[in-house]
Amino acid sequence: MNDPAGVDPIIVTRWLEFETDVGSVRDITGDVCEAVLGSGLEEGIATIFVPGATGAVTTLEHEEGLVRDLGDALERLVPEEIEYAHNERWHDGNGHSHVRASLIGPSLTLPFSGQSPVLGTWQQIVFLELDTRPRHRRVMVQILGE
Amino acid sequence: MNDPAGVDPIIVTRWLEFETDVGSVRDITGDVCEAVLGSGLEEGIATIFVPGATGAVTTLEHEEGLVRDLGDALERLVPEEIEYAHNERWHDGNGHSHVRASLIGPSLTLPFSGQSPVLGTWQQIVFLELDTRPRHRRVMVQILGE
Amino acid sequence: MNDPAGVDPIIVTRWLEFETDVGSVRDITGDVCEAVLGSGLEEGIATIFVPGATGAVTTLEHEEGLVRDLGDALERLVPEEIEYAHNERWHDGNGHSHVRASLIGPSLTLPFSGQSPVLGTWQQIVFLELDTRPRHRRVMVQILGE
Repeated sequence: MNDPAGVDPIIVTRWLEFETDVGSVRDITGDVCEAVLGSGLEEGIATIFVPGATGAVTTLEHEEGLVRDLGDALERLVPEEIEYAHNERWHDGNGHSHVRASLIGPSLTLPFSGQSPVLGTWQQIVFLELDTRPRHRRVMVQILGE
Repeated sequence: MNDPAGVDPIIVTRWLEFETDVGSVRDITGDVCEAVLGSGLEEGIATIFVPGATGAVTTLEHEEGLVRDLGDALERLVPEEIEYAHNERWHDGNGHSHVRASLIGPSLTLPFSGQSPVLGTWQQIVFLELDTRPRHRRVMVQILGE
Repeated sequence: MNDPAGVDPIIVTRWLEFETDVGSVRDITGDVCEAVLGSGLEEGIATIFVPGATGAVTTLEHEEGLVRDLGDALERLVPEEIEYAHNERWHDGNGHSHVRASLIGPSLTLPFSGQSPVLGTWQQIVFLELDTRPRHRRVMVQILGE
């Protein structure tokens, strides 16, 4: 919690930490809102970034149906059970995880205004665990504002 | 138009508003350029953000052919007529809209220099209406610069 | 190299320039790290942007296997040899290049801290040449920080 409150901060860094399950889609909206509020900044942007090649971040209406639909789409587009050169070389078995992560992307920048992220009513910020085993994840929220 | 011109602004917020048709791909380059120019900032970045779970933003050479090709690709990758758990639960009929939006993403950050966004000659900023009905859309342009 | 070092810079612009081969996936992590280090900024964000409609940027564990896997996935999702309205109108033969670029996206924003981009151990920043001929590419790194 490195908050230089009161001295017109420009950049504030926060880390979210959590454990994941395989295939999980985690709603991190509350954590990001809290990070923005805690920064003391009124207006700006927050970059949410996944350091790691098998996780991704995007937005989604986080309800049970769509969580399943997004997972189904990823399995349809980048199936787990086809051949990956990555698996042949490294025997990780997570070639599909890497490709899916590159497709969705590790970074989301969203504006905030009045100390609150600008989001649609049914739009949540989600972290996608795309790896083949549960992971401990750290996601950075880099907040720039005034 | 909340432009604190003259006092070395760091952040300037603009909203774009428009009506959409189903499946439309709207060229918003001119609006974004105008927003950047109107901010009075010379150098920086602009984050274009869609508050809503069934719209998306990316870049595309905005010509009739590619607009059709991108739509065809989305229909091939995330077809409208397959089963979605979202539709079963909520009877919205727009499960595909949500999944497509998560795939493309709601946010685009682009640099500007000399008061103008840095874009390729044939590269336009586009808003994708992915929902199943015409919508009134508000898209935020959050401009950070000096 | 427009570095106003010493006077508390907020924004620093760098350009990466390189030649590409068709289908190449270029690791630009070193160049981005150097740009961030050269900016003299400690904390902030860097936006990596491709001005052009047939290139893209994302992250990937840059090893031979995954480079092939990502290329295979793009060919499976957006095949070169199907019909594109773009090709019919303009006879460019690169309709698939444009669609792939819109899907992956031209922009990546990543945080840096302690003068260094925040990345996972096996996560590299990659430029994807999606066009059908070798290109001279310029990629912008717009750095905001303190």
